[in-house]
Amino acid sequence: MNEGGTRRPRAAVVLTGSELVTGVIVDANGPWLARELTALGFEVVHLLGVGDRPDDLAAALRYCAAAGCVLVVTSGGLGPTADDLTGEVVATFAGVELELDEALQQRIAAIIARFPRIDQNPAARDAGIRKQALVPRGAVVLEPVGTAPGLIVSTDGPLVVVLPGPPRELTRMWPAALASAPVQALLATVPAPAGRHLRYYGLSEAEVAATLRGLEQERDLAAVEVTTCLRRSELEVDLRPQPGADDAARWLADELATRHADRLVSADGTTTDDLLARALLDAGLTVATAESCTGGLLAGRLVDRPGSSAYVLGGIVSYSNAAKTALLGVPADLIEAHGAVSPEVARAMADGARAALGADVGIGITGVAGPDGGTPEKPVGYVCFCVTTSSGHVLARDRRLPGGRADVRDRSVDAGMHLLLRTVTTAG
Amino acid sequence: MNEGGTRRPRAAVVLTGSELVTGVIVDANGPWLARELTALGFEVVHLLGVGDRPDDLAAALRYCAAAGCVLVVTSGGLGPTADDLTGEVVATFAGVELELDEALQQRIAAIIARFPRIDQNPAARDAGIRKQALVPRGAVVLEPVGTAPGLIVSTDGPLVVVLPGPPRELTRMWPAALASAPVQALLATVPAPAGRHLRYYGLSEAEVAATLRGLEQERDLAAVEVTTCLRRSELEVDLRPQPGADDAARWLADELATRHADRLVSADGTTTDDLLARALLDAGLTVATAESCTGGLLAGRLVDRPGSSAYVLGGIVSYSNAAKTALLGVPADLIEAHGAVSPEVARAMADGARAALGADVGIGITGVAGPDGGTPEKPVGYVCFCVTTSSGHVLARDRRLPGGRADVRDRSVDAGMHLLLRTVTTAG
Repeated sequence: MNEGGTRRPRAAVVLTGSELVTGVIVDANGPWLARELTALGFEVVHLLGVGDRPDDLAAALRYCAAAGCVLVVTSGGLGPTADDLTGEVVATFAGVELELDEALQQRIAAIIARFPRIDQNPAARDAGIRKQALVPRGAVVLEPVGTAPGLIVSTDGPLVVVLPGPPRELTRMWPAALASAPVQALLATVPAPAGRHLRYYGLSEAEVAATLRGLEQERDLAAVEVTTCLRRSELEVDLRPQPGADDAARWLADELATRHADRLVSADGTTTDDLLARALLDAGLTVATAESCTGGLLAGRLVDRPGSSAYVLGGIVSYSNAAKTALLGVPADLIEAHGAVSPEVARAMADGARAALGADVGIGITGVAGPDGGTPEKPVGYVCFCVTTSSGHVLARDRRLPGGRADVRDRSVDAGMHLLLRTVTTAG
Repeated sequence: MNEGGTRRPRAAVVLTGSELVTGVIVDANGPWLARELTALGFEVVHLLGVGDRPDDLAAALRYCAAAGCVLVVTSGGLGPTADDLTGEVVATFAGVELELDEALQQRIAAIIARFPRIDQNPAARDAGIRKQALVPRGAVVLEPVGTAPGLIVSTDGPLVVVLPGPPRELTRMWPAALASAPVQALLATVPAPAGRHLRYYGLSEAEVAATLRGLEQERDLAAVEVTTCLRRSELEVDLRPQPGADDAARWLADELATRHADRLVSADGTTTDDLLARALLDAGLTVATAESCTGGLLAGRLVDRPGSSAYVLGGIVSYSNAAKTALLGVPADLIEAHGAVSPEVARAMADGARAALGADVGIGITGVAGPDGGTPEKPVGYVCFCVTTSSGHVLARDRRLPGGRADVRDRSVDAGMHLLLRTVTTAG
């Protein structure tokens, strides 16, 4: 925990909006800002979502100051209506007045004038524009990406960066916030980060914890914060050294990569999706999918990447047995003999996808996603995978995946991606 | 804002875990708990994510108490390792000692004994089990769903419900928390909630805001909190009355439903996915998809529902022109004449999907998802949709959808769902 050593400067994120605290939306700004701030070298103390209530927002800012934060980034509450009160609350927190920025008022009016007319009276519209042009004295204004300007407000405590709530506006305004003089001055005091990121498939958190316990006996690792996170069936291991502990972090990353090399996806954080895309492009191979229980989600994940049309030819979602036979040429008697969920049918689906689409690599997935349809021999979560290639490689798996319907489908897509990656990198 | 009136009892959610505050994961527990607490009738003051640091967690609990919360729900920090310190911090907050619950210790040991062996020495394992069996004096223990028990701890301030971090454990332990005596006693003091939920497609927040401004002049709506949220291209409008304002909320919901009836999806919050599934089942119709730019995501969304095999026959992802011709029977000269992204090809894809899979309803989607492939006539975001039925109905749209590649694909799936719903409910 490095209690006595140098710590990174602390930062916090405050998200406003009643839709957050009622659970209507899952916030994306918080994690995005947390990653940015962590990558800049801050220690993020907390992410705090509050409703559109001035007292609660003011209390949140005081709480951040009391936690020793040198930087607070807020999102939301910059709109034209009475509920949008971030600017006013931050001004009060900073102990300064709001002043009308007339030039800004005109720029916002010009933006609003471009928007489609809505049923709103001019007085309400102008009041809204005026409200958005009220700036805490001395604040830096960040030009609107949508209609709301951002603000950078210096206080006796933390520097407060005020950003709009819509994620697209927030992320597009962020570079201007970073480039501003007050943020640049603050960043000059932040030690450079030196995080390491490892990615595994098929490794458990408990195994990593056990390895870490062993390594801690070889070397003092107290100044390296290790976070493990299971996402898309992969274990992501993040190492974040406190200032001065870069060597320890490097040593630890190398040890972790070596000791679990058999299940390492990448030692630099590169994703499976990136690795597979590169491998297919490098080998000049095309791919086609045949999906049953995953219902098109594997194809959707493959074409998620820009430029994927260079190697994804398409896919077939064969939810019914008739579709498996008609579109993929899976013999009806094969289904009859082994069942629609069987290694034999998965292989015939992979071959069928290749044939139907003229692809080099085919993958077939068939399984019992549940909640119904399970049997003692083939329970819910039983999924058969097969990848075949035009050069004659075959890689097959059958797995019993845990969880409910959505879990089984998501894990099947993850497993399919890994099976494709393994096939393409070994059978190239 | 109803400053002087009766307010709902306040609650807060505190999420622990360094992976939250570094942005490694997007938290799902917070929104889930916020929805549960709101549905129970609490006003959720904030969602607060903190790292695995005892001082920060203790400060978070004090902050909740200062905000007037009568209930705090925590997630995470209940594991066997030194970083898992929620129980200890909550005990200190409550001003009570930790005591070893020996019966609980034995139950946890029995659970651990069933887990696959990992490389861990027995002393460390037993220390971990003992740590998880330390209970703040007087606390109610919630039986483990994974290996960690939950806790319900009474304090001079808020009641604290301590739950494990893995979402599956948290959601499965929640009913036991609600059934516990201290929570039941608290719930008896909470006025019943009376929220209303409306769902629109094609309506903007600005239009709702303008309607609200008009309605506020007809009736005092200060005691009804209105939240709007755009999700999956739909505008969700939530109305939450303070105690005593149920009539006002009901009147407002009816007015909003009537005034924008043309774009209302449901007046009770029912989702498009539910409505479509019901409509297909009621009409006894089957559906098949032909997707280009959405790459299987529409099929994936359709089969997301348990029981969807009753009406989804399957789909074809025809990313290449050759696949459109070979699998969907789209004439090559039609593609040549109008382009792969054209209303004509979308219609031929819909017909082709129906024919290939023997379905009653077919949908074709072809568009330019970007970032490349746009032209002045058919820019990035231009997407053609067509639904055709075996009874001869045809419903076609072409749209220019805003945003980047992921936005265009997601919005195309949303638009496809709505076009299917409209076809089935009108042509049924």
